[in-house]
Amino acid sequence: MSTKDTLASVKALTFDVFGTVVDWRGSVIRQCEAFGAQHGVATDWGRFADRWRHEGYYGPIRDIVTGRAPRRTADALHREKLGQLLDELGATQVDEAARDEWNLAWHRLDPWTDAVAGLARLRQRYIVCTLSNGNFRLLVDMARHAQLGWDAILTADLIGAFKPESGSYLGAARLLGLAPGEVMMVAAHKADLRAAQSNGLRAAFVPRPEESGPHVTVDLTPDPAFDVVAPDFLALADALGC
Amino acid sequence: MSTKDTLASVKALTFDVFGTVVDWRGSVIRQCEAFGAQHGVATDWGRFADRWRHEGYYGPIRDIVTGRAPRRTADALHREKLGQLLDELGATQVDEAARDEWNLAWHRLDPWTDAVAGLARLRQRYIVCTLSNGNFRLLVDMARHAQLGWDAILTADLIGAFKPESGSYLGAARLLGLAPGEVMMVAAHKADLRAAQSNGLRAAFVPRPEESGPHVTVDLTPDPAFDVVAPDFLALADALGC
Repeated sequence: MSTKDTLASVKALTFDVFGTVVDWRGSVIRQCEAFGAQHGVATDWGRFADRWRHEGYYGPIRDIVTGRAPRRTADALHREKLGQLLDELGATQVDEAARDEWNLAWHRLDPWTDAVAGLARLRQRYIVCTLSNGNFRLLVDMARHAQLGWDAILTADLIGAFKPESGSYLGAARLLGLAPGEVMMVAAHKADLRAAQSNGLRAAFVPRPEESGPHVTVDLTPDPAFDVVAPDFLALADALGC
Repeated sequence: MSTKDTLASVKALTFDVFGTVVDWRGSVIRQCEAFGAQHGVATDWGRFADRWRHEGYYGPIRDIVTGRAPRRTADALHREKLGQLLDELGATQVDEAARDEWNLAWHRLDPWTDAVAGLARLRQRYIVCTLSNGNFRLLVDMARHAQLGWDAILTADLIGAFKPESGSYLGAARLLGLAPGEVMMVAAHKADLRAAQSNGLRAAFVPRPEESGPHVTVDLTPDPAFDVVAPDFLALADALGC
């Protein structure tokens, strides 16, 4: 079967969201600068955002999927790490209520400039939905904030599995009433796509070189193992004939 | 607390869909007329639609929630009953593939005339999502067909509970990160609203006198136990100050 025939069977696109659809790092830095100014906290907010995400989210999710930590939502993971980071800075003036509010920065992430228009084009032909390790309310708030036109929102707490667990990809396909090969995962992260492929899904790689900032190195080279490689969602729509 | 204060705490509206948002009976009748003409099947399609829904959906869901039948999706329930009804009509010329296609009539239901505009107004102020006993793919297809602007789609197969089970209402509130009293159920069906209220949710009654057709009697009288009673979604938006 040619690539074209393979892609013709795709009915739905499931999107990684943090980094693939929205610029989490830039958005969090901007909001931390504002919260910091409001509460009299100063630090390198780029490093702060990196630690918040890497130590507070990626690390704990690795522990969850390997069975070393109990399942919790992204909101809970982010909130715990935020408390640690503010404590390290001695920011005792930021009380628990203010920390709860600060944690909602993750609900107000801004999209990459191509994301809203690209999703609208892709939606004309495909079911477009999230498949995120974030929690449902976080993704609902983000979609409202960033005007993301999803057909539906699927998240780790809804499905009961985190990526890269098989249950995440296969759960999404099952809920969509589709065979795994009729679903294409769209992500800026190769590990997510490889896990999707190992469960029978198709894969579209949309590298986002600005996602991770200057302190983290990410493999963004094209990979022929993926069905599509596109620099943004508009190019993805072109590649899929939308 | 006054009614106004009570309503001020509402952050999300969860909608019953079949009958409340879309005209399932009229839509199914129209599609059955077309399928019947295509396949050479003639009958009273109003009675056919009533039996398909009441014997094929409401009855089995009652059996499911009382533990007398295994959990299955709305699609599976509808498909089984459609087979029985066509067999009764001796419609052996309608093969299994055609019956599968006919069953998708439920994915293409048309909205009440106020629904799309009303939802758009309500969405400006509230999170609006489905809370339906239908299955996820059915509701996704229906939203695309009827251009329903949901923030998210919550369904029985996603949540793992059918209305009127408590897990349905409380599961929706939990996923939304809200207390039950911050969620308002919107429905044309009093039993749904009473179950929502018994789990702490607020309730808006939107009677739809044309839902059930001439052969079924439904209690559509206003009830002061509900927080809001409105004749359609535009009036509901007015009542909620949207």
